[in-house]
Amino acid sequence: MPEDVIGLVGGTGAEGRGLAVRFALAGMRVVVGSRLLERARETIDALRARFGPLPLEAGDNRSILRDCSATLLTVPFAHAAAILEAHRDDFRAGSLLVDVTVPVGFEGGKAAMIEVAEGSGAEHLRGRLRADVALAVAFKTIPAALLARPGTALDCDDFVCGDSPDARARTMDLLRVIPGLRPIDAGPLSSARTIEGLTLLAIRVNRRYKVREARFRMVGVP
Amino acid sequence: MPEDVIGLVGGTGAEGRGLAVRFALAGMRVVVGSRLLERARETIDALRARFGPLPLEAGDNRSILRDCSATLLTVPFAHAAAILEAHRDDFRAGSLLVDVTVPVGFEGGKAAMIEVAEGSGAEHLRGRLRADVALAVAFKTIPAALLARPGTALDCDDFVCGDSPDARARTMDLLRVIPGLRPIDAGPLSSARTIEGLTLLAIRVNRRYKVREARFRMVGVP
Repeated sequence: MPEDVIGLVGGTGAEGRGLAVRFALAGMRVVVGSRLLERARETIDALRARFGPLPLEAGDNRSILRDCSATLLTVPFAHAAAILEAHRDDFRAGSLLVDVTVPVGFEGGKAAMIEVAEGSGAEHLRGRLRADVALAVAFKTIPAALLARPGTALDCDDFVCGDSPDARARTMDLLRVIPGLRPIDAGPLSSARTIEGLTLLAIRVNRRYKVREARFRMVGVP
Repeated sequence: MPEDVIGLVGGTGAEGRGLAVRFALAGMRVVVGSRLLERARETIDALRARFGPLPLEAGDNRSILRDCSATLLTVPFAHAAAILEAHRDDFRAGSLLVDVTVPVGFEGGKAAMIEVAEGSGAEHLRGRLRADVALAVAFKTIPAALLARPGTALDCDDFVCGDSPDARARTMDLLRVIPGLRPIDAGPLSSARTIEGLTLLAIRVNRRYKVREARFRMVGVP
């Protein structure tokens, strides 16, 4: 059964705002989080001004992690490990964290993977979480700018991987509430190495083809 | 301008046979290669018995590398480096090699990447080639079984990367002769890290969804 409320840790950035809008329009209760409650409030005020009344609430990251059974990690990748370490004891027991971060940096105008010893950003973050918190990956290849234009169908697949079949199933149930988005079960957390690489590949394709919202779909999968 | 003849180094396996059929049906002259000319002859006899008269020729790998300006490397990945080293001086000057190999192995029934120090199989092979031979990657995510059933449209995209814009352009021109296949310019050879990971991801998806020909398409790319 899908969750009925979803928390966004650090949901005031472009990715967080886009996901908040898509989930809220799908009828889900969304708690937009920030380190500072006031900033989260400003974000939902701005979203409501633009998209009308939506089931959005504001929260601080700590209370979101304590209250929600499912949260999306929508902070910049560069801050993700430190934030998880700082909140290690705040996670609700048995809760699900969905890693949405993208370990891609820009050096001299060129996009490049941020290399970590564990092989992927998601595996890097796994080590910062308590064992009873489940981790999955989603939304890594969905353009933030597209999420923020809910009048345009996503019309693509989303690759989900995770550290257990249960983590993946819960994440895929979450995704299914968003119209036009099909979750693909991509298996173990190590698939994040490829999924995160796809983000870089899409950035390169966007630049080469002068588009902004290149994304992926699988063929031959029922 | 696309090449009018294409050579297949080690073209007697499943991937080579499928590519030979698809290119020959598209009207291209194809030279199917093997270490032993006799084996290449047996392969094209078998293909003609099944698919009718096709512009196929048999050759030995060495003469193919000397004669063809574009060749596909369709040997098992485990043998690819040794074969390139053995043939280092046989490549025609300025020729293009398209790496079709898949660095995926099976351990205890589970598929896993074959890790190489260079980060991808294609970059590993680059070091075995003379500097004047251009290297590109293609067909890594196209299921061999699907290639061998030319009555079924490929209906997908193919990610091409390479060590120069020219290598990619020549490779994409080659691909465009095959109906239903759209080349996507995925940039530098290092994109092979992700493209080869996609092969593993597709294998995992095939198993999980009980299908055999999962493949990829990009959305939002003109």
